[in-house]
Amino acid sequence: MRIAVVRETREGETRVALVPELVGRLTTLGYDVLVEPGAGERALLADAEYADAGAVLDPDAVDDADLVVSVQPLDPGTVRRLRRGATTVSFLPVGQELGLVADLRDLGITSLAMELVPRISRAQSMDALSSQSLVSGYRCAVVAVGLLRRFFPLNMTAAGTVQPAEVVVLGAGVAGLQAIATAKRLGAVVRAYDVRAAAAEEIRSMGAKAIELDLETLDGAGGYAREMSEDRAARQRELLAPYIANADALITTAAVPGRTAPLLVEAATIEQMRPGSVVVDLAADSGGNVEGAVAGTIVRIGHAQVWGGRNVPSQMPGPASRLYAQNIVNLVTLLTRADADGAPTLDPDLDDEILAAACVTHDGVVRHEPTRVALEGNPAEERP
Amino acid sequence: MRIAVVRETREGETRVALVPELVGRLTTLGYDVLVEPGAGERALLADAEYADAGAVLDPDAVDDADLVVSVQPLDPGTVRRLRRGATTVSFLPVGQELGLVADLRDLGITSLAMELVPRISRAQSMDALSSQSLVSGYRCAVVAVGLLRRFFPLNMTAAGTVQPAEVVVLGAGVAGLQAIATAKRLGAVVRAYDVRAAAAEEIRSMGAKAIELDLETLDGAGGYAREMSEDRAARQRELLAPYIANADALITTAAVPGRTAPLLVEAATIEQMRPGSVVVDLAADSGGNVEGAVAGTIVRIGHAQVWGGRNVPSQMPGPASRLYAQNIVNLVTLLTRADADGAPTLDPDLDDEILAAACVTHDGVVRHEPTRVALEGNPAEERP
Repeated sequence: MRIAVVRETREGETRVALVPELVGRLTTLGYDVLVEPGAGERALLADAEYADAGAVLDPDAVDDADLVVSVQPLDPGTVRRLRRGATTVSFLPVGQELGLVADLRDLGITSLAMELVPRISRAQSMDALSSQSLVSGYRCAVVAVGLLRRFFPLNMTAAGTVQPAEVVVLGAGVAGLQAIATAKRLGAVVRAYDVRAAAAEEIRSMGAKAIELDLETLDGAGGYAREMSEDRAARQRELLAPYIANADALITTAAVPGRTAPLLVEAATIEQMRPGSVVVDLAADSGGNVEGAVAGTIVRIGHAQVWGGRNVPSQMPGPASRLYAQNIVNLVTLLTRADADGAPTLDPDLDDEILAAACVTHDGVVRHEPTRVALEGNPAEERP
Repeated sequence: MRIAVVRETREGETRVALVPELVGRLTTLGYDVLVEPGAGERALLADAEYADAGAVLDPDAVDDADLVVSVQPLDPGTVRRLRRGATTVSFLPVGQELGLVADLRDLGITSLAMELVPRISRAQSMDALSSQSLVSGYRCAVVAVGLLRRFFPLNMTAAGTVQPAEVVVLGAGVAGLQAIATAKRLGAVVRAYDVRAAAAEEIRSMGAKAIELDLETLDGAGGYAREMSEDRAARQRELLAPYIANADALITTAAVPGRTAPLLVEAATIEQMRPGSVVVDLAADSGGNVEGAVAGTIVRIGHAQVWGGRNVPSQMPGPASRLYAQNIVNLVTLLTRADADGAPTLDPDLDDEILAAACVTHDGVVRHEPTRVALEGNPAEERP
């Protein structure tokens, strides 16, 4: 079974889908791993390290591969080089990639989307959204620490006491909790809010104070929040405003994969923040939690510097790649059985709960129902 | 008694010698505080805050002042505007400012240098080198955290364990200990070295591992290290090299005020560090602990990014100014007595141990002996 590792081509992408350490584990198990030269370069992983781990460096790695792994969706040119029946595993934001999904379908490719791996406990080790959010959440806090030109911790000195920074975190999923943990480690006073019922307890377990608003909680599928009415959103913004105005640093992390991020903070609220305050919007990539934030840059709103995240895991390509690669290896194991000689063979059971959820296209058919409807229309609606 | 607060003019200086909160304390005690408009601007302190605290905003603040406080030495034009008998308090690196010292002498100014305040316990609250080193040490660690594109803490996740970063800190004075504390807070594995005998215990008390080398310790005056022979320095560089080669981040903080920083690490050692590693040289301003480091910029040596510090406290002007201002206020109190009406009057006792040490010029005489010798020659040597 031949696994190809792609050199990522999308702008700003620095990660790689497999790291040498895990290539070594796969080659030991009998997989053939082919790596496009330079695949790990932007994650500071040299071709020689892949070769030492037993991979073959091959510019044409994808051409005869049984399985092609990547971080970003393959580009259309690469998809056309795959052999019919090949399998791809990558992030694949189906709503934004309908053309690519149609190509994968028409070329008879089996494609699996990492963001569609369900949030069940058996799939935890394959949950790339979580592993990459861990990286983003840490990085967000580090960015806030670097931008804020004052101490995070309390400092008691001979020349007096310096008060700790006040940090507000909105959204307490994996990224938010990691941002909280990092800010707490550095000694900041952290307050956090999330619309989900379980969040307050999780926030407190990280040592932060839970902001409690007199609003109903909103729990959706898979541990994510569900969307809220515009009335509730407006009321929430109003109730959060005084907490934000009082913060030295605001970190927002409320994003739900495949959806536009909710607007949590209006520019008018940011304008009430003190001189020198800092805003980090991890969701800027997907519309932004903060009005006026721009992905990939720092803008000034009022007295605050507002940092908009863009592909934040790519800012820490080493650990992000390592965690993603571990997710990939765990999924590869699920796609494989040993043949009569004990060699690994690609043989996915698409009825398995995890694979059924993650599979986008297979054997000429779009199996992800909302995507199929988006591409092909709803047969029910077409009935006379 | 009129105290003037100067708007700093040196390039890159963002601090201010008094902050509104402490201006308020002085005005309550009966001092008149005059502030040059814009003095606090780069530290994000508005003129209105000074006015609210009871200061008078006055572009000509220094002209009739009894006491002029600043962070950097006054520029020559400002010195010439002072009235004879006025007192200045600022950092004043005498070795680099002989011309200015001669002016201060010739104009009959009493000048006090903050870096000459002795390291005795009664003077701790006036020790601006320590207060500013606290800021620098924190900032150095924050810079290293931001540059290093991997986690500082250990992370145990469903997708495997991410090892904590390995940090080496050289120099464990105030700045070094603060860098250690900050890196430890973030969960890094920290090893540190300092030539002073007491350092190992202090390093361990911050939770770091003390690097112990088979070399004599070097304790000098005032808690600083004394200079070492070139032989010992070379041997020390050799013994430290394997620790540095193995580090993800190296932070060097070995600087002694008024002296060129010791060269602790050769470029050849940095070249042995791994891809992605990070070096922060706080001493780059004064010659550098790391060969090839450049103050105020990032250079690449081998696979490492090497950040050279330049006026690092100015990167956190708010807290740096607040701590410095507290040092200033404590020194002002020592310079002052209450007159018959209870009003504060400038009346320094230059025989006081602290003021005797800090005083550079007074009443037409250079009182700091090494500076006097540098300016006027050694009368002993001139004897026939």
